[in-house]
Amino acid sequence: MNYSKVTPKVSLIGAGPGDQELLTLKAVKALQSAKVVLYDALVDQPILDLIPATAEKIYVGKRANKHRFSQEDINMLMVTYALNYGHVVRLKGGDPFIFGRGHEELEFADLFDIPVEYIPGISSSVGLAGLQRVPLTRRHFAQSFWVLTGTTTAGKLSEDIKLAAQSSATLVILMAMRKIKEIADLFNEIGKGDTPVMIIQNGSRPNERVVLGQMHNIFERASVGGIGRPGIIVVGEVVQFHPEFAYEQALQHFQNQSV
Amino acid sequence: MNYSKVTPKVSLIGAGPGDQELLTLKAVKALQSAKVVLYDALVDQPILDLIPATAEKIYVGKRANKHRFSQEDINMLMVTYALNYGHVVRLKGGDPFIFGRGHEELEFADLFDIPVEYIPGISSSVGLAGLQRVPLTRRHFAQSFWVLTGTTTAGKLSEDIKLAAQSSATLVILMAMRKIKEIADLFNEIGKGDTPVMIIQNGSRPNERVVLGQMHNIFERASVGGIGRPGIIVVGEVVQFHPEFAYEQALQHFQNQSV
Repeated sequence: MNYSKVTPKVSLIGAGPGDQELLTLKAVKALQSAKVVLYDALVDQPILDLIPATAEKIYVGKRANKHRFSQEDINMLMVTYALNYGHVVRLKGGDPFIFGRGHEELEFADLFDIPVEYIPGISSSVGLAGLQRVPLTRRHFAQSFWVLTGTTTAGKLSEDIKLAAQSSATLVILMAMRKIKEIADLFNEIGKGDTPVMIIQNGSRPNERVVLGQMHNIFERASVGGIGRPGIIVVGEVVQFHPEFAYEQALQHFQNQSV
Repeated sequence: MNYSKVTPKVSLIGAGPGDQELLTLKAVKALQSAKVVLYDALVDQPILDLIPATAEKIYVGKRANKHRFSQEDINMLMVTYALNYGHVVRLKGGDPFIFGRGHEELEFADLFDIPVEYIPGISSSVGLAGLQRVPLTRRHFAQSFWVLTGTTTAGKLSEDIKLAAQSSATLVILMAMRKIKEIADLFNEIGKGDTPVMIIQNGSRPNERVVLGQMHNIFERASVGGIGRPGIIVVGEVVQFHPEFAYEQALQHFQNQSV
């Protein structure tokens, strides 16, 4: 180890929703000059293929209760590698400042006076609905959008979701697949059971799956569709713009009648 | 004109907040195969430089009351060029489905059975705060973010902003520079005058400007700073993470005392 020979730097990069081509030019450039890349579970192989063979690639993903590295481990690895090898890329799915702990990681690097750089990515919360031809805003249908998590750090349904249910905003709810019944109940109780809902799993990836419905039937439809975690839930009138929404509605109507 | 010789296609592309390197690989690829590019006011020259010399570049921007092309003009141009020349790229700043009329444009192309493609971009509403080291979400500070417009199509202050002021979400308010006093008054009246606020103008561009403050002084500070339109307003506790926020607060305190 010879600290004087390296110029430490940390680039925090958003890898986007999954498709390699949704990386930015700036992200690709940073990956190409990386000495070490620390990457998460939601980063796919074609993106990892952009990393030079000479760089060390380290998987530090954690999912639900199956931790491999603690946040403290990741922070220490990042700083240690930067001081010893130079340019470290911290690669996270979506955008690293949206529900990641990217900001905390950069603060940790600050403590060691390591120069840091944030490179935004296409957040799944914003880009994935559009790839389904559903705009998050649209004149006369939705003038705003609100991105929330379904579950608070305490494991409860987020208080903001109750306020959100009263708004006219399009809602994008992340980390909410376990709470979908509770969310639907909330809308049904306030007379908004006909609000259109779309669930997207593995958005922009080859194994992408979509379930369309309304609050009164989305829990059942997600169960029948076998949609698992992680998924994003889009709620609001704009979901009607999905090309198959009208067809799905007609199909359900027919199925209900034939019972 | 010979329709049989061309394969019409429309790609609706998000150019991101301004910096050329924040384009996605997919966007660059689409630009490179374009026969015609219709672009807006918020797309900068370095991005236009990526368009092949053989392609026709047409500025269809409109700003405030200074229209050059109506939306109907743009729709007709897009379809006419696609049918006659093949691949048309519709290039918009930020993400084309966030407060653009991109979705309506694709619907118009649908009427002519022209295949369409949406390529998401880094929305200014999401990426620009991060470039100031302000994360839109952060544990214990903000568990959600809400993107709104300041002004409704009727020119009034958006109703959603009143609800938003009551939430704990980080707010990102676009097209709101004319309403900044009204928004600040709203927060001040409900006892939230100390809410941190950041205004970003020309984010990610060389002429970027930032004003930091709190609801009780942001109108004055934006006026003194000479911040004009268009600008984005970020509201919430996370604004404290801006590296100069503490310094600015101390400076104001000192100035107030010396009066």
